[in-house]
Amino acid sequence: MRHSPLVQQLIDAFTCLPGVGPKSAQRMAYYLLERHREGGEHLAAALHEAMEGVGQCSRCRNFAEAPLCPVCMDTERNPALVCVVASPADVLAFEQAGGYNGRYFVLAGHLSPIDGMGPEEVGLPLLQQQLGEGHIEEIILATSSTVEGEVTAHYIQEMCQQHEVLVSRLAQGVPVGGELEFVSGATLAQALSERRSVKP
Amino acid sequence: MRHSPLVQQLIDAFTCLPGVGPKSAQRMAYYLLERHREGGEHLAAALHEAMEGVGQCSRCRNFAEAPLCPVCMDTERNPALVCVVASPADVLAFEQAGGYNGRYFVLAGHLSPIDGMGPEEVGLPLLQQQLGEGHIEEIILATSSTVEGEVTAHYIQEMCQQHEVLVSRLAQGVPVGGELEFVSGATLAQALSERRSVKP
Repeated sequence: MRHSPLVQQLIDAFTCLPGVGPKSAQRMAYYLLERHREGGEHLAAALHEAMEGVGQCSRCRNFAEAPLCPVCMDTERNPALVCVVASPADVLAFEQAGGYNGRYFVLAGHLSPIDGMGPEEVGLPLLQQQLGEGHIEEIILATSSTVEGEVTAHYIQEMCQQHEVLVSRLAQGVPVGGELEFVSGATLAQALSERRSVKP
Repeated sequence: MRHSPLVQQLIDAFTCLPGVGPKSAQRMAYYLLERHREGGEHLAAALHEAMEGVGQCSRCRNFAEAPLCPVCMDTERNPALVCVVASPADVLAFEQAGGYNGRYFVLAGHLSPIDGMGPEEVGLPLLQQQLGEGHIEEIILATSSTVEGEVTAHYIQEMCQQHEVLVSRLAQGVPVGGELEFVSGATLAQALSERRSVKP
């Protein structure tokens, strides 16, 4: 069956969302049209406003609606401690975990020359500039434990050598609360070689 | 962490979709903002256009962008054969199954006096009027096999008694291609009592 054009257009548009295939998209479109048109109009407005209104923090490149993001505007946080992550979703993960009171620097992904992602493309010149200003005391490298993430971390580490700044990397090991049998071999080996002595 | 206001508004708006909880909503919002702003704008426009532009077929109450829906406009289909269903999604199910060449009549749900759904609310006066015009030869009752669906089917059956019209109900029995062990007891009993003789 051919849907009528506007319904088909809506179904196609829904499939651009992550985890939404043609079946779920159809269910979403029919649900809104049948039972929740107000919700549909509200979603349309919220989408438009967010796509137009959400920009980048001029200091850390996180999502922001003002020149600075809420984290950079928070005067309670330590501006000399900078956690470098690869996306705004990573900032969210840290903030939801809680307990971190420094600020962030958000790259536009990891370095990956084969995909055309060089230092300029991921936004490293701005970090370079901030290092040059001399207010940063510690850089925490929180890029992924993938090849690209490690390459990116290594590149930033080199960058930091010209400045007097402490560089650290997230600890690697077994996840907290995880069953040992489901931990990957590489992770176990790492956890074993970096074991910590326990005081009696 | 508090998201910035526009991001929070977008996440909240996404949770109005069926099957989307706060976690998926957050993932969708971040995905669009980080990587697919064009897709977000396109979805906003498609939603707005569909919510505004999709109305009801004046003849069968299915989704329509013109006075008549595509099925009612199709001159190849038999207008004297009418399948009564409870929602546009049911029309879609029949059309995707294929093989039906009559038209539909789409109720706004099943009769359910306790929820304030009487004959007027589900749209039965229009079917009554069409029965009165005398062009309908057969009504196929395709409401659900639930209590409300059966009540609705029974009500329409009574309505048809004043007119010369054949009334039929969808066959009940074991699903095609289904494993017998997963079929409900009520369905099996029905399939047994309505067994058909097989010609040798």
